[in-house]
Amino acid sequence: MKINENYLKLEQSYLFTNIGRKVSAYQAEHPDKKIIRLGIGDVTLPLCPAVIDAMHAAVTEMGKAETFRGYGPEQGYDFLRNAVRDYYAQRGVQLKSEEIFISDGAKSDIGNILDLFSADNTVLIPDPVYPVYVDTNIMAGRKILYMDANEKNGFLPLPDPAVKADIIYLCSPNNPTGAVYNRQQLKAWVDYALDCGAVLLFDAAYECFIHDPALPRSIFEIEGARRCAIEFCSFSKTAGFTGTRCGYTVVPEELEFEGASLNKFWLRRQTTKFNGVPYIVQRGAAAVFTPEGQEQIHKNIEYYMENARAIAGAMRNLGIWFTGGENSPYIWLKCPGGRSSWEYFDYLLEEKNIVGTPGAGFGKNGEGFFRLTAFGSREATLEAIERLSK
Amino acid sequence: MKINENYLKLEQSYLFTNIGRKVSAYQAEHPDKKIIRLGIGDVTLPLCPAVIDAMHAAVTEMGKAETFRGYGPEQGYDFLRNAVRDYYAQRGVQLKSEEIFISDGAKSDIGNILDLFSADNTVLIPDPVYPVYVDTNIMAGRKILYMDANEKNGFLPLPDPAVKADIIYLCSPNNPTGAVYNRQQLKAWVDYALDCGAVLLFDAAYECFIHDPALPRSIFEIEGARRCAIEFCSFSKTAGFTGTRCGYTVVPEELEFEGASLNKFWLRRQTTKFNGVPYIVQRGAAAVFTPEGQEQIHKNIEYYMENARAIAGAMRNLGIWFTGGENSPYIWLKCPGGRSSWEYFDYLLEEKNIVGTPGAGFGKNGEGFFRLTAFGSREATLEAIERLSK
Repeated sequence: MKINENYLKLEQSYLFTNIGRKVSAYQAEHPDKKIIRLGIGDVTLPLCPAVIDAMHAAVTEMGKAETFRGYGPEQGYDFLRNAVRDYYAQRGVQLKSEEIFISDGAKSDIGNILDLFSADNTVLIPDPVYPVYVDTNIMAGRKILYMDANEKNGFLPLPDPAVKADIIYLCSPNNPTGAVYNRQQLKAWVDYALDCGAVLLFDAAYECFIHDPALPRSIFEIEGARRCAIEFCSFSKTAGFTGTRCGYTVVPEELEFEGASLNKFWLRRQTTKFNGVPYIVQRGAAAVFTPEGQEQIHKNIEYYMENARAIAGAMRNLGIWFTGGENSPYIWLKCPGGRSSWEYFDYLLEEKNIVGTPGAGFGKNGEGFFRLTAFGSREATLEAIERLSK
Repeated sequence: MKINENYLKLEQSYLFTNIGRKVSAYQAEHPDKKIIRLGIGDVTLPLCPAVIDAMHAAVTEMGKAETFRGYGPEQGYDFLRNAVRDYYAQRGVQLKSEEIFISDGAKSDIGNILDLFSADNTVLIPDPVYPVYVDTNIMAGRKILYMDANEKNGFLPLPDPAVKADIIYLCSPNNPTGAVYNRQQLKAWVDYALDCGAVLLFDAAYECFIHDPALPRSIFEIEGARRCAIEFCSFSKTAGFTGTRCGYTVVPEELEFEGASLNKFWLRRQTTKFNGVPYIVQRGAAAVFTPEGQEQIHKNIEYYMENARAIAGAMRNLGIWFTGGENSPYIWLKCPGGRSSWEYFDYLLEEKNIVGTPGAGFGKNGEGFFRLTAFGSREATLEAIERLSK
């Protein structure tokens, strides 16, 4: 049997291993120091009561013969697909339920969508980047081009007409930089994709953190996107589902390449290699869209965003250049004093007892930058700010 | 963008669509007739109380800050990996927890495991077959060879030394035929795989229906299998998880090809393209392995197996040749009177008001055969037997 040799080309990422090792070593030497972790990319608030109630009810249903559910539709139950459709409609984006595929999370679908595309495509990926975009394409042996996200373009690269690509990744609000594309910038990407005959893979996992009504929360707010884009979204950050696992992927019916419908391809992929999201989890996800659910999750989002604004305010006071923090839970800052990412990591750990994430771990353009997140507790966040400001 | 043209080679399966259409048409014309469905491949008994209690407790945990769980390990929580390890150990199969990967079901993993293998491999698949084995390889553009399962070999094909393959699928107890390989037969497959340098993909989704202690329930009961086999298993049929979604895949540490460890490859694939099974579901699955859970699921399995034995007994009385029904929830029968699969389907529907599944839908060797399942209620099963026996 011949292995997929592309796997041998993957680089091991030691980013979080190295962070953990350094933090443990420091803590062992200084057991009295209270370390604050602002590097965390996971949510910390529990699931909201509407979700909990809906999941308890669904668990009870699964225990009774009259209400037990076996295999469900691979693409998700209508009650949830319709709820997602209506959520988009509230923002003026008209989708059909058949264009919405319920998944076990954006990460799975962002990886698996590549099944639909030939290995003989060129991929365009921003740097710095969420590593999954890169690794999944290395696994498939595709040629990867990088576009520079940097201080000059505010970490929001725009299309370069001289570069031709087939598959383009955009993430807005961005992980790790927190930068958010405006409508005009996304329009430039849609026009470029339509011009190249490329597909845009739009990662909207952080859309719920956008508060500015002028900023687009879906690629489908942009004219023409239905002919070139697929959107990935998730309940992970919206409603604290990182350990509960639910997301959705939108594949418009108009999306055709070489006469083939990607919506039909994806349906075939999912019905062949996936068996749907647990009924209990889908009921929990549907509760996110009820009036109580919306009120409760917005309270949680607001909690994180107050943290983000507090960190952003501190950066401004300290005269540190940064992106994010306004419409994103991430604050991406330029390491003061010309420090490298890891130098700044060591400085923060040793001098301020604060842990963040070195930007260099997200790509070469991340060097000299640093990521803080808003997912900590209010108390820890405010204490970290106080330490930073001293 | 260039699509994956292999998707264009997939054949649409109209098997269950055609069955549904015929049943609806008959019912519309004969609204007074009570149709019994013995074609169902889904479980019908609700989740057992131990699982329900564990999931309620886990939902409650997710609603409180102190016990909330965010991202878990992609390969599953230790509490569940260890429980699966101990389950194997009870049958004398020693596994490490690190060799067990918790998944959202066998179907997903059987599809996704192919990521690890070059497209330039030859695949050997039995006919008749669970269609997922075929379609996932067509999607990847692999060359497929079929091995004949038929009345002569009891639907248990053995290796043909003249045929060389790289990836071999075995399913025992088999879906759709219910046939079960014995130890000696599986040993022949393991020896052949080791000899060819092939990987065996062993689908053990129905292992819990094996009551005969002489029959192997895991490929890892066979000497040498740790160097050539991957095993897929599921809580779907074992514990009624078809709508709850949990399974596990065993990739031994010794499994190496071209010096690469498939265990490490699979870990990399899962950490890159998957984010784990919901915490709540993993707690439910772990409860299956508690003493109460085991007692409760065995009661359910026994319920289905009484149905299976009743159907098998009726076949014997009617002098109909069949496989399965003893150590499997499927009964695969030779259509009496030389009828084709669909002729027998029409006969059963129209004359006996019983719905089953035409064997022709599972491959060319399924023609002239028919699948009945034990997943109906006792009452419906016994009434169907009475109708058949008249």
